[in-house]
Amino acid sequence: MNVALPDEVFGTIDTGNTAWMLISASLVLLMTPALAFFYGGLARAKSVLNMMMMSFGALGAVTVVYVLWGFSMSFGNSLTGTGDIAGLFSNPLALFGSDQLAQTRTVGDTTEFVLWGDTHIPATVFMAFQLTFAVLTVALISGAIAERVRFATWIVFSVVFSTVVYFPIAHMVWGGGILSGSPDGIAAKMFGTTDGEASVAPIDFAGGTVVHINAGMAGLVLALVVGQRKGFGRKIFRPHNIPFVMLGAALLWFGWFGFNAGSELAADANAGLVWLNTAAGTSAAMVGWLAIEWYRDDRPTSVGAASGVVAGLVAITPACGALTPVGSLGLGFIAGALAAAAIGLKYRFGLDDSLDVVGVHLVAGLWGTVGVGLFAKESGILYGHDVKQLAVQTVIACVALAFTGILTAVIAYLLKPMGWRIDPEVEQSGIDAGEHAESAYELA
Amino acid sequence: MNVALPDEVFGTIDTGNTAWMLISASLVLLMTPALAFFYGGLARAKSVLNMMMMSFGALGAVTVVYVLWGFSMSFGNSLTGTGDIAGLFSNPLALFGSDQLAQTRTVGDTTEFVLWGDTHIPATVFMAFQLTFAVLTVALISGAIAERVRFATWIVFSVVFSTVVYFPIAHMVWGGGILSGSPDGIAAKMFGTTDGEASVAPIDFAGGTVVHINAGMAGLVLALVVGQRKGFGRKIFRPHNIPFVMLGAALLWFGWFGFNAGSELAADANAGLVWLNTAAGTSAAMVGWLAIEWYRDDRPTSVGAASGVVAGLVAITPACGALTPVGSLGLGFIAGALAAAAIGLKYRFGLDDSLDVVGVHLVAGLWGTVGVGLFAKESGILYGHDVKQLAVQTVIACVALAFTGILTAVIAYLLKPMGWRIDPEVEQSGIDAGEHAESAYELA
Amino acid sequence: MNVALPDEVFGTIDTGNTAWMLISASLVLLMTPALAFFYGGLARAKSVLNMMMMSFGALGAVTVVYVLWGFSMSFGNSLTGTGDIAGLFSNPLALFGSDQLAQTRTVGDTTEFVLWGDTHIPATVFMAFQLTFAVLTVALISGAIAERVRFATWIVFSVVFSTVVYFPIAHMVWGGGILSGSPDGIAAKMFGTTDGEASVAPIDFAGGTVVHINAGMAGLVLALVVGQRKGFGRKIFRPHNIPFVMLGAALLWFGWFGFNAGSELAADANAGLVWLNTAAGTSAAMVGWLAIEWYRDDRPTSVGAASGVVAGLVAITPACGALTPVGSLGLGFIAGALAAAAIGLKYRFGLDDSLDVVGVHLVAGLWGTVGVGLFAKESGILYGHDVKQLAVQTVIACVALAFTGILTAVIAYLLKPMGWRIDPEVEQSGIDAGEHAESAYELA
Repeated sequence: MNVALPDEVFGTIDTGNTAWMLISASLVLLMTPALAFFYGGLARAKSVLNMMMMSFGALGAVTVVYVLWGFSMSFGNSLTGTGDIAGLFSNPLALFGSDQLAQTRTVGDTTEFVLWGDTHIPATVFMAFQLTFAVLTVALISGAIAERVRFATWIVFSVVFSTVVYFPIAHMVWGGGILSGSPDGIAAKMFGTTDGEASVAPIDFAGGTVVHINAGMAGLVLALVVGQRKGFGRKIFRPHNIPFVMLGAALLWFGWFGFNAGSELAADANAGLVWLNTAAGTSAAMVGWLAIEWYRDDRPTSVGAASGVVAGLVAITPACGALTPVGSLGLGFIAGALAAAAIGLKYRFGLDDSLDVVGVHLVAGLWGTVGVGLFAKESGILYGHDVKQLAVQTVIACVALAFTGILTAVIAYLLKPMGWRIDPEVEQSGIDAGEHAESAYELA
Repeated sequence: MNVALPDEVFGTIDTGNTAWMLISASLVLLMTPALAFFYGGLARAKSVLNMMMMSFGALGAVTVVYVLWGFSMSFGNSLTGTGDIAGLFSNPLALFGSDQLAQTRTVGDTTEFVLWGDTHIPATVFMAFQLTFAVLTVALISGAIAERVRFATWIVFSVVFSTVVYFPIAHMVWGGGILSGSPDGIAAKMFGTTDGEASVAPIDFAGGTVVHINAGMAGLVLALVVGQRKGFGRKIFRPHNIPFVMLGAALLWFGWFGFNAGSELAADANAGLVWLNTAAGTSAAMVGWLAIEWYRDDRPTSVGAASGVVAGLVAITPACGALTPVGSLGLGFIAGALAAAAIGLKYRFGLDDSLDVVGVHLVAGLWGTVGVGLFAKESGILYGHDVKQLAVQTVIACVALAFTGILTAVIAYLLKPMGWRIDPEVEQSGIDAGEHAESAYELA
Repeated sequence: MNVALPDEVFGTIDTGNTAWMLISASLVLLMTPALAFFYGGLARAKSVLNMMMMSFGALGAVTVVYVLWGFSMSFGNSLTGTGDIAGLFSNPLALFGSDQLAQTRTVGDTTEFVLWGDTHIPATVFMAFQLTFAVLTVALISGAIAERVRFATWIVFSVVFSTVVYFPIAHMVWGGGILSGSPDGIAAKMFGTTDGEASVAPIDFAGGTVVHINAGMAGLVLALVVGQRKGFGRKIFRPHNIPFVMLGAALLWFGWFGFNAGSELAADANAGLVWLNTAAGTSAAMVGWLAIEWYRDDRPTSVGAASGVVAGLVAITPACGALTPVGSLGLGFIAGALAAAAIGLKYRFGLDDSLDVVGVHLVAGLWGTVGVGLFAKESGILYGHDVKQLAVQTVIACVALAFTGILTAVIAYLLKPMGWRIDPEVEQSGIDAGEHAESAYELA
């Protein structure tokens, strides 16, 4: 049932670009355990293991399905040269199992490999890189429903969400689907095409829509479906290990250089610019978050610094290929300040977005995606261009919100018979003991 | 006493392959501290520092001897072009101190360097990469004799074991010795040679034999010689810090991309395939381990997830260059399930393999090495080939087991006069205080 | 006010070298959070967050100013082709905001980028790499004044010190200023010039002067200005979490491969040698430190192993490009032993260099810088050369000491009105609660 690969995809590789992508993939894979520490540190001591297991479990389950049908659904048509399904996803069976990517062809004395795109990196390496994004997106969601969810249901959700939401949205944005600059896409419908591409193509360099808006919206929906933790709004749930939160933030930042500068798919001058923008935007966001805290609460906190780092990384993700370093400072500072202000609102709305997935990922992800319309050097309003880019970014963000929101709600309700919540007594006594028969520390 | 290098080893480098190997070496070096956290978290709070020091001490001591004579013993003859000693090891003095690797030669306008192999990486970089494997192998052993061994004896053992066991075995498998595909090797004796190499060459892509069977067998021998901890089998020794176990597993996985995909010695399409197989096999092993726990104990644990990760990484290590991604899922799943089942046996045999070095590294290492005979695309039984590869893999594994087992036993007995065990009172009150005059935490 | 870049700086890139520099920059960025763990673990439980925030805060603040004027001050003239200011620093406005580095130029069919130097890496990537050094240097200082300093004052100090001390000293040593081999530099004045460069050029491969002597001296000055912690010399301040100290040391070592081997600016055979020397020197220093402890205190400690690692890394930093692996073993062993002996002296002098910044960074940094005059293969006394290199290294180190010492003292006094010390009661009850309204752990 696999579809044969055409001759055009074979070619010779660039070892420098390939080296950079191999390490970038490794860096992004590290981000999921990093997130486990960020979330685990924020959780209470009786829930840290379950919190970490939500990330590790997603890592195991999503990797398996990505190898089987995920890559095929997101990017298969680009290699096989066949069409996709309504701009939404590609044939899951075309490259099922992904074994085809390892083919070689001998032309004269030269061995040729299956390449991805025009930077002469092997398709195996591109797939490795993309696999890590799928895993991370699912793991991000877990923070919104911390400390109260059945592990079995979470694992099933991981597989279903990847298949029904993530693989399609990755295809839509990066695989030539309706949220890309393709001539059949929404952006082309808005402002026409030039040379067979949308005149004003959507900009999502490294995954503001695919990863952060997506995960943030899914988190919002699940938090509503699953409901509040016992005692939410009455008791204060304090992080049990803030150094772990800092460790998580640090490793996330480290890995994010692979995430963002790796998305260039080449080791070149633009990858260097993306690296600088990532550092600049993130630092400015940390400063922005601490400034809000300093002004509002008179004390800048470490949890604030770590959260500011993450908010900055999220916001710069879609924008990092289109901004100058100074523009990145501006976008980042606002991201930090905005997210710091936003996370206070959850108590007002009674939303137990436990570890601030909505406040950080959805808010900063939306800001970054829309902010491109303001800050992009080639097309942003602040550089004297018209509002078209801003319009495209806004529409793309809204479509992604709706797509993820609706489908996640459907999945969440379909899984209700499995049971989302652990027993109230288990929640009280501790989910680590209840779901995993373990306790995190034996320090005495 | 150094042997001069012949002209043929000089040449020009490929910067992309070299970049990948530089970072791979760094990644593998990180694995030893990662192991210190994996083991340290599994130990009790009164033993965590000693546990970590066994890894750090090995890192210090083995690096020093590797620079002095280790590289020369393992790989010297490949550069000097002279013969080895009975296929067992190379002349330790030929490249003593390793300073010769930094030589350059000017040919016309071009500066040429000492290269390793045909991927145009510098010999200095290959040596850096190999050094990290020697360190890690020794550190792995420490888990079998946790919480009860004199630090001084351990350091001496590190140096002796590296010299007498590790450097030779690395030579035998990767340096053209008797466990390689060399025409003088065992495999060539079994099924003859083709074009001057064994017709059915042993497959150990990244060190299943050299690292994991080796470390696992040495751990088994030492655990028997050193004996059980006080209270073993009567008291339950619970891990003191499971998040550290997760941290260790995560950093091990991260570093293992360097270990496995770095063993390709090039940034190419096959390195990408190895990366994918490493991710696939490891994820499937985590799933396999958790499935056994879920079925047997009704609860999947975090220690199980972390151990499953390590078992998967171990099993995929020899196989990752020969399998498809789907084959890797199969090999990994079985590895996780097998190791999960195996670690329960130690109580039955009264073997205090404290942190499951035998259960994880020896069992999964053997499975991965032998499993190549089943799952390898070009020569495995499951792909319709005959049993020759399986036979070669089995014989190679058995020879390695015997070689390591016998020599480790000899070393262990020779070191008995130094004293392996700490005093029983110190073991009771805590090895950290006794051997290092420290305690890990002052949290109050 | 920006200065236009001349045509000569444009060219095509080498993807392999660029890949190595992108990952090296990421590795060095990770070193600042790694330091936060090294220092945080050494601090008491009531101070760990503030300790970590001193690193994270520096990371945020220094990154912002580096993007704005730091790179321009350190390296701007090399790109713009204009002169610097008295060999001390370059025009801060010439490349203000750094946006110019992302320029491209099209020549025929080829896109050319702004390059740095002759290894064909993009200037954006070189800037990314250098940015991380500035951040780390400032963060290093914080260990000397742990647990007692107002966070606001520290952040202001970070910005002022970077601007007035670090950016100039980076220019002096690496940007063609008076501490470089430039014909206008001090070394050229000492022993004349050959082919337009100092005949005996100072050797500071990766930052012994710029980073470690600089940070160590600044730490010494601040520790004197800020004064001792309450109870210093009477109470024993024990590290609250030694595994964190080990984690910090491990990640520092990992990152340091980027720091040192990245300073080659290319993925080549010399980068491999630097990698080996870094591993060899560091391992030998760990052995040296533990040997002193074993001899003096009868117990080798984990804090000693971690500190030995850092001392070795510091000492090998200036020397790693000029030594053989065996020379690195020697230099490193002495570094470890020397620093282990030195840190005991602080109690004698009543200097509360809380986390041994002076004892480790200043002592090992000076030893490494001066030791080059002994151990360098091409110019060291131990290889039969004359004393000129030693003389140059000593003079350069003394000038750097004086420059940093005087300016840091001036800054420290100018900031006195802001207040350096927290209130004595806050110091007693805990700086985390007082400055950040947080406590690190909620383990019960």
